[in-house]
Amino acid sequence: VSFVINSIMANSKYEYVKKFELDDRLLPGVWLVCRIDGRGFHKFTSEHAFRKPNDLRALELMNKCASRVLEEFDDVVVAYGQSDEFSFVLSKEAALFKRRSAKISTAIVSLFASSYVFYWKEYFHEEVLRYPPAFDARIVCYPNIEVLRDYLSWRQVDCHINNLYNTCFWTLVESGKSPKEAEERLCGTFSDDKNELLFSDFGINYNDIPAIFRRGSILRWDLVDKMVKRASGKEVQRVIPAVVTVHDDWIKDAFWIENPRLLEGRK
Amino acid sequence: VSFVINSIMANSKYEYVKKFELDDRLLPGVWLVCRIDGRGFHKFTSEHAFRKPNDLRALELMNKCASRVLEEFDDVVVAYGQSDEFSFVLSKEAALFKRRSAKISTAIVSLFASSYVFYWKEYFHEEVLRYPPAFDARIVCYPNIEVLRDYLSWRQVDCHINNLYNTCFWTLVESGKSPKEAEERLCGTFSDDKNELLFSDFGINYNDIPAIFRRGSILRWDLVDKMVKRASGKEVQRVIPAVVTVHDDWIKDAFWIENPRLLEGRK
Amino acid sequence: VSFVINSIMANSKYEYVKKFELDDRLLPGVWLVCRIDGRGFHKFTSEHAFRKPNDLRALELMNKCASRVLEEFDDVVVAYGQSDEFSFVLSKEAALFKRRSAKISTAIVSLFASSYVFYWKEYFHEEVLRYPPAFDARIVCYPNIEVLRDYLSWRQVDCHINNLYNTCFWTLVESGKSPKEAEERLCGTFSDDKNELLFSDFGINYNDIPAIFRRGSILRWDLVDKMVKRASGKEVQRVIPAVVTVHDDWIKDAFWIENPRLLEGRK
Amino acid sequence: VSFVINSIMANSKYEYVKKFELDDRLLPGVWLVCRIDGRGFHKFTSEHAFRKPNDLRALELMNKCASRVLEEFDDVVVAYGQSDEFSFVLSKEAALFKRRSAKISTAIVSLFASSYVFYWKEYFHEEVLRYPPAFDARIVCYPNIEVLRDYLSWRQVDCHINNLYNTCFWTLVESGKSPKEAEERLCGTFSDDKNELLFSDFGINYNDIPAIFRRGSILRWDLVDKMVKRASGKEVQRVIPAVVTVHDDWIKDAFWIENPRLLEGRK
Repeated sequence: VSFVINSIMANSKYEYVKKFELDDRLLPGVWLVCRIDGRGFHKFTSEHAFRKPNDLRALELMNKCASRVLEEFDDVVVAYGQSDEFSFVLSKEAALFKRRSAKISTAIVSLFASSYVFYWKEYFHEEVLRYPPAFDARIVCYPNIEVLRDYLSWRQVDCHINNLYNTCFWTLVESGKSPKEAEERLCGTFSDDKNELLFSDFGINYNDIPAIFRRGSILRWDLVDKMVKRASGKEVQRVIPAVVTVHDDWIKDAFWIENPRLLEGRK
Repeated sequence: VSFVINSIMANSKYEYVKKFELDDRLLPGVWLVCRIDGRGFHKFTSEHAFRKPNDLRALELMNKCASRVLEEFDDVVVAYGQSDEFSFVLSKEAALFKRRSAKISTAIVSLFASSYVFYWKEYFHEEVLRYPPAFDARIVCYPNIEVLRDYLSWRQVDCHINNLYNTCFWTLVESGKSPKEAEERLCGTFSDDKNELLFSDFGINYNDIPAIFRRGSILRWDLVDKMVKRASGKEVQRVIPAVVTVHDDWIKDAFWIENPRLLEGRK
Repeated sequence: VSFVINSIMANSKYEYVKKFELDDRLLPGVWLVCRIDGRGFHKFTSEHAFRKPNDLRALELMNKCASRVLEEFDDVVVAYGQSDEFSFVLSKEAALFKRRSAKISTAIVSLFASSYVFYWKEYFHEEVLRYPPAFDARIVCYPNIEVLRDYLSWRQVDCHINNLYNTCFWTLVESGKSPKEAEERLCGTFSDDKNELLFSDFGINYNDIPAIFRRGSILRWDLVDKMVKRASGKEVQRVIPAVVTVHDDWIKDAFWIENPRLLEGRK
Repeated sequence: VSFVINSIMANSKYEYVKKFELDDRLLPGVWLVCRIDGRGFHKFTSEHAFRKPNDLRALELMNKCASRVLEEFDDVVVAYGQSDEFSFVLSKEAALFKRRSAKISTAIVSLFASSYVFYWKEYFHEEVLRYPPAFDARIVCYPNIEVLRDYLSWRQVDCHINNLYNTCFWTLVESGKSPKEAEERLCGTFSDDKNELLFSDFGINYNDIPAIFRRGSILRWDLVDKMVKRASGKEVQRVIPAVVTVHDDWIKDAFWIENPRLLEGRK
């Protein structure tokens, strides 16, 4: 009974513990990049029979989850994904959660993770999800567009290096080599050696491999035509903002010249 | 082609962007509490027809997700949940992710969120999940057991205050009052007024309401008897550590006297 | 004796306490401003009979201390002082103490404070320093030149507002008004009212007041001619970098157009 | 003129730059240790002909500066100094500057540094101070008395190890050895070897060396008898709190048993 009667007073008495929560606001005026990474995805991909070297279903599911994040958080202006990672770029003017670091990263990563389970069946069909996956996330501040572009280039080069290696590796393995032999064959090779290997030994032109594998996915806002039903029931064409996915090379200046408003987001 | 040939060099060139990631390690020797909260759960509960004032299915789903977190992360020694929030207590010796704050909070919250979708059907059956939910999370450091206990008491008193209010409110509404009338009826009342109201007007003894509603859920490690199948096929009883859920009053000293090893976790 | 024999082992045993020191490195690629402020200078100025509204000796002593800071720390590219405060701008490439925040602010503020006592007599002559003064310091990150310039303008406007007010206040007091009357006379007046008051009632043209009072002091590196004695004993003129003090209006673009390399420091 | 008229408006326009200052409050409920270290004191001691292996004047000057810090900041409960470093312990309830880290460290270090110059002559007499010294400071949080005591023991063991080595080294050098020979003689020796060396070769009993050199200085509040002049002119004895300096071994439990209220400070 004393529990009941004194509860409000008790709460005031305990409320001082809130003061232990420290402010984690991020610097204003800088770009924020929230990058999420799959936790234990080596095991996860093998338990769920992901196709090697790339599983289109998995990449498209990742893209779907990321598009949910863009739609939910206005301050996310562009996203880039490859393998089991996704980077979300928040505008330097972003005021989301007063720029509180933990709020931003946890809201994004939890929506991404719940979406991964929610949309799994849409992409993996009969392949049953055996257990809920986890991701981690971090936020890094980038003070200007030059270094932000270098970050984005870094991830795309990383995508390329890994994909070229994995493509060679799994092609060798499929051709009958053991994983160990494949690894040894590739040890010490440069990018052009690997291209040559694919072309000479297997007739594969690396540039013919789908761009989503070679370059990853850029999710951005664009204006698209859409048929919208009016109250009257009549369908009309409207130009509306929507998240679109491209697989361009954004290391090159050309990309940024052609997409001058990319970092402005939905507006 | 130049993209391909120079990719490794390019990556080294861009790798400097890693230096913008700052160290966010938390103080050693203090208890860490990671509290997660449902985002936009007012809308979420109404879209999914949650029962008022409490939905047992929802609370048990939350508990299930939390037990996944305890099983996954050894350093989480106890957890407390109520409504759409859960607090995870990490040992003061916790070395998880080198105590990097963002890693800990995002790994926990993303596993919780993906579990929420994964296990939804087990608890909500025919009630379809309409969209993936999100949670936020924060980590707070508590330097000693006294203040940690005060934190845990704070959350349990909060549970009680809200539940007593909500029980009265929805009982009034079910009895025919409008929400506005119910609110006015409760305005300015103390805990004992509310108990009296429930008892006199509706014959409800508040203490008969299930403890999970009144006190929330404490998830802890305990040794339980379990039948285990040996290699020979014979079943034998074993004592193994497992996550158990109780609904005790841990504001009182008695609880801590009876559970002296609670904060030691699985060990 | 056991103290002596086991001391090294003891030290290893205690060294774990170093792990409680957390990393406080500041974001790379942003300008750092370390601003120091006199602590308790209201009392300090009255105990040391500072002249009102401005004491040239005090301002020149501050400038001297600041020039020591510029000479000591290469990464400080420019400094701005007024009243009992000084702002030190560190280059966005600054690597001083690996950009550890506490190291930078404490090294600067302690050198400033010890210099204040060390050089006191040079400026205050027979006025005896009664006790050692203290300053506090903080470091703020500014991500680009626009916002850095706005910071510098903010401090210069602050100098102006305070100096105009103080000039009017002390002129009124010297003319026989009580402090209270002077305060009332100035209450609600705008800048042009104050200029008019000085001019009409006292024949003072505010713009004739020394620029160091109206605009504060900008300390910067410049190349200056200096006579240097060679080994042969012969004096020759050399162009060497030196800290120079100016009192320009750097709110205006003109200043930055005329001083395009200001933020490059000594180089 | 426009500068003058619009200054207040200009200031409001620029004031947004204040938002770039981030909160650096330290965790409540933990002990704070602010340790300051001389910067470039190798050069400083040689330029000012410090006596080797210990200069009593220098140590007493350090203690004087530290006592100023204790007198100025109530929250500093005890301090420990050796060589060119000093540690200031702030109570776990300390509310100084709302526990803002930069404020605390810079206020302490600047008062210490200005005091060093201010009191120099009192200890070094005819030895002229050639240039103003600098110190750096850092703040570390310690969550409980055990680890705080380990920190304090760590510094005292460090004092001992260095002093024993330096005593041997300079005794050897004074006896005619070159610095290189002295270093080689000591290489690989343990504490008892060094004690033996001092005793056998030079007749020095290490324990007879003044405790201030062997153990450093503990500055603490105590009640002392003091003659105070009344308004009537009559002198009376009063018990007042004052900073006292001791050179005890506080690694041993005995010290803490004898000084149970040490960490309560002035109260």
